[in-house]
Amino acid sequence: MPDSPCGSLPSGSSFSEEERRGVYRAIYERRDVHSFLPDPVPDDVLGRILDAAHHAPSVGFMQPWDFLVIRDASVRQAVHRNFERATLRAAAAYAGEQRKIYDSLKLAGILDAPLNLCVTCDHARPKGSGLGRQTDPASDLYSTVCAIQNLWLAARAESLGVGWISILDFEELKAILGIPAALRPVAYLCIGYVTEFRRQPQLEEKGWETRTGLASITHFDHWGNHQQAAK
Amino acid sequence: MPDSPCGSLPSGSSFSEEERRGVYRAIYERRDVHSFLPDPVPDDVLGRILDAAHHAPSVGFMQPWDFLVIRDASVRQAVHRNFERATLRAAAAYAGEQRKIYDSLKLAGILDAPLNLCVTCDHARPKGSGLGRQTDPASDLYSTVCAIQNLWLAARAESLGVGWISILDFEELKAILGIPAALRPVAYLCIGYVTEFRRQPQLEEKGWETRTGLASITHFDHWGNHQQAAK
Repeated sequence: MPDSPCGSLPSGSSFSEEERRGVYRAIYERRDVHSFLPDPVPDDVLGRILDAAHHAPSVGFMQPWDFLVIRDASVRQAVHRNFERATLRAAAAYAGEQRKIYDSLKLAGILDAPLNLCVTCDHARPKGSGLGRQTDPASDLYSTVCAIQNLWLAARAESLGVGWISILDFEELKAILGIPAALRPVAYLCIGYVTEFRRQPQLEEKGWETRTGLASITHFDHWGNHQQAAK
Repeated sequence: MPDSPCGSLPSGSSFSEEERRGVYRAIYERRDVHSFLPDPVPDDVLGRILDAAHHAPSVGFMQPWDFLVIRDASVRQAVHRNFERATLRAAAAYAGEQRKIYDSLKLAGILDAPLNLCVTCDHARPKGSGLGRQTDPASDLYSTVCAIQNLWLAARAESLGVGWISILDFEELKAILGIPAALRPVAYLCIGYVTEFRRQPQLEEKGWETRTGLASITHFDHWGNHQQAAK
């Protein structure tokens, strides 16, 4: 793995306008991507996005994650078959117009993407000595997701698309990948270069769901107060 | 809430070197901050970081989060008392040198920070029609954490520090804030301007825990293979 690129960065100071714009661009232009170009992801780029994930916040500095990088075609084929069965079972929940939209969605690019990545959480990792975990035992899962979101945003800055596959039989996935029983696979991601980053999420574009207005889910000082107090 | 700043941004194209550096700076310089300056956070800045959170990925485009912004001093005092009791209970788990370090840690800036933010997850929100949730019911929590990490990184780009308080009695917190019983508070955050962003995490600096080497938690194609296959 290459060194992190932060050694030579200025630290602690304000961001330039362009640096700040980069952060917002990554946030707004990040997409859940399921169509990929076959071009391989260079090792140095992979190293940078994994190191970005590894610098996520974690409860008690526990760093409960592991990263399982998958390029092998036969492994990806086994995961793809797992996905196909799971998505067929999931489809049964939808009928009529909704089923039509469901069938039109592309929900995984396991075989197209040159790189797959499984991110796990180890609930029993002793690091951090339980600091912050006594009051919320799920906080190690939260740390793991912070790592995933770091990777997703760094990937966008590298012009890499990432798709998160939720529709899998996770017990079978653990068997395919040899993940120890006590660990929890949190995300199965497909990663690769793309022809485009859609302007809107696929689910918005295809009419599956609309974006909530931010004001309707923002409260002030007490739940249900949607107006700010006068200052 | 102001409009998102993305309207005028270029979309879909590559990042400039400086934009890309902004993303990595946010990732590497983000800290869990518990000491704050009293300066208020302007409404437009608050609007931008909340909108950044609101543009996180979510399972089925469910957007299961709510944002409860807390400035009221009496509410923050009640949460601070909750934290003080919880941290005293948590301290009992540590003895000797570890207890000394624990007692030296600053783990919350609830009263110092001009702004507190509770982010919740609504498991029962019908949006998204369950897409992606049949196989992993925790995926709505994951979406909520993606929103939190977006906000944390956007905050760094705005020179704002964010601290995540895990050591709270969350049932009591719900009562203080009036959060409906069915909802789950995922994060209680303190937000404000800071005197510095530490070069290292506090827990590393004070000797609570060390950073794991990335190579030791990276696997290739099958769990436990720490070497990449030859290409």
